[in-house]
Amino acid sequence: MQRIRVGITMGDPAGIGPEVISKSLAHDDIREQADYIIVGDRRFYHKHASSIDPSVQFVDMANVPAGIRTGMVSREAGLASYQYLERAVRLIKDGDIQALVTAPVCKEAISLNQIPFQGHTEFLAQSFNANNIGMLFVAGEMRTIIVTRHLPLCEVPRAITTESVYQTIQITNQGLKCLFNIEKPVIGVCGLNPHAGEGGRLGDDERNTIIPAIEQSLKNGLDVHGPFASDTLFQPSWEKRYDAIVAMYHDQGLIPIKTLSMHRLVNLTLGLPFIRTSPAHGTAFDIAGQNRAHSDSMVESLKLAVQLTQLQLPGNSQKEG
Amino acid sequence: MQRIRVGITMGDPAGIGPEVISKSLAHDDIREQADYIIVGDRRFYHKHASSIDPSVQFVDMANVPAGIRTGMVSREAGLASYQYLERAVRLIKDGDIQALVTAPVCKEAISLNQIPFQGHTEFLAQSFNANNIGMLFVAGEMRTIIVTRHLPLCEVPRAITTESVYQTIQITNQGLKCLFNIEKPVIGVCGLNPHAGEGGRLGDDERNTIIPAIEQSLKNGLDVHGPFASDTLFQPSWEKRYDAIVAMYHDQGLIPIKTLSMHRLVNLTLGLPFIRTSPAHGTAFDIAGQNRAHSDSMVESLKLAVQLTQLQLPGNSQKEG
Repeated sequence: MQRIRVGITMGDPAGIGPEVISKSLAHDDIREQADYIIVGDRRFYHKHASSIDPSVQFVDMANVPAGIRTGMVSREAGLASYQYLERAVRLIKDGDIQALVTAPVCKEAISLNQIPFQGHTEFLAQSFNANNIGMLFVAGEMRTIIVTRHLPLCEVPRAITTESVYQTIQITNQGLKCLFNIEKPVIGVCGLNPHAGEGGRLGDDERNTIIPAIEQSLKNGLDVHGPFASDTLFQPSWEKRYDAIVAMYHDQGLIPIKTLSMHRLVNLTLGLPFIRTSPAHGTAFDIAGQNRAHSDSMVESLKLAVQLTQLQLPGNSQKEG
Repeated sequence: MQRIRVGITMGDPAGIGPEVISKSLAHDDIREQADYIIVGDRRFYHKHASSIDPSVQFVDMANVPAGIRTGMVSREAGLASYQYLERAVRLIKDGDIQALVTAPVCKEAISLNQIPFQGHTEFLAQSFNANNIGMLFVAGEMRTIIVTRHLPLCEVPRAITTESVYQTIQITNQGLKCLFNIEKPVIGVCGLNPHAGEGGRLGDDERNTIIPAIEQSLKNGLDVHGPFASDTLFQPSWEKRYDAIVAMYHDQGLIPIKTLSMHRLVNLTLGLPFIRTSPAHGTAFDIAGQNRAHSDSMVESLKLAVQLTQLQLPGNSQKEG
């Protein structure tokens, strides 16, 4: 089997990125499954990593100025983290890496450089002209995708349209088929309102927007169910019933999967021409530099990136088979 | 210790009420801890209960007409369930029962009788002129209360006011002190928006509304923390950190606690002059009459009602001590 080259952006130097990367690469089974190229600042990483694996390669940007303070938001750290991403995009485009795993950045720190940055997902979508992307969260067999991402709650209802729900169902189905090799994905869909609107008594969005999107998907042959009351859909005993659950907004999808699997949660971008994962946590400035960070989510992110990239290789994918 | 008399309304006859009541009363430890008075239809209950305990008393309303179909919404079943509640209010007021546990009703069935009925909580609040009530969900040591209850999601943001958040914090603090005998409750508060608004980038409600409510509570000596990102607040490892978590809306509070504890979840009304609990599930028409219903939530509801009522008895409560 072809050996995969995985790029890892170091993230904000003041956060827990260097720590969780080095902790993850200390696992034998992780190191054995692929080659890793850290896009970061080698000197800084070596100073802050909890352990150093000499076999790990570096694209050394040497861009963290002295005096960066761990746990603090700073313009310099934000700029450095952004430059890792730009470089990683080049590596992907040049074929130097086949998959990308991103350590957390601090949006506020990046924005101090007057760089418009909504998030990794949007940055990568733009860099690869991907119009229809999805943010799928994966914790073992449980997967959830969110129709709207980082929106104030008051803006969510009007962003839930038949089109946005339909597109999300489509990209979920596509992602499960192409990336996870699930032949006929079974997808569950949340309502927007309590009790999924309770037949219209608690909101019309289900009737007017979500149900039409489900019906359109069914017409296209997808195996889609709902809308369901979101407070009963995520019980662990239900995990296996759906290959993925479509949630309408950030907290509706993230509360249950983080509540169940905070420390092994992976964020996977659907709709890019390569596999990109990241641990579903932030820079955790409050515990940075204290060797207290959980690296399980980074470990799972690396594993998933390798596993899904292998499935894409000729001979491994159903599409090619 | 004084023996407590607990009233149990039978709920919608077409739902799983009779089944979960009889299953619960089959437990020796439940029967031993109190006397129970079912407010329902004795003949119907005896026909549909999974087992019959002869020691259970009845206030027999004899109001379920022949021909009620299990699992179906009907005007007659709705009316019967409503009459149990009216009768239970009289029993409380007359001192015949000290606590009330309600089996689920079907709002749609009640509304077919042109009876305006928002829910048990609102009905009881009105019946006892309780102006400031709260809906606290309890699963073991995890407790969560919701500031807004059954509202379409689009109406939530404008219902989140400094006043409504402050009132909910107050009643939570009061309930934890008076009902649970927690001397100095520690309360966590959710944000409304993703990442609790991310410093204003994802919404202003935290800054303009929720933080002022927390500050006002702190000024009054309460031990209140937040607002926190709701997707990281409910991890099981955090359960013990807060005596209760204040969520802003239905699914924000119900998704995590149901995801973790669906089958042992209790709904407790704060602000009434007696203890009222109920299992946090509905009539479950889809499985009614099939002997498939979980009765754990009803068991927990009965246990909690007895336990909290005992704490209120002279000599048992801190207030009296």
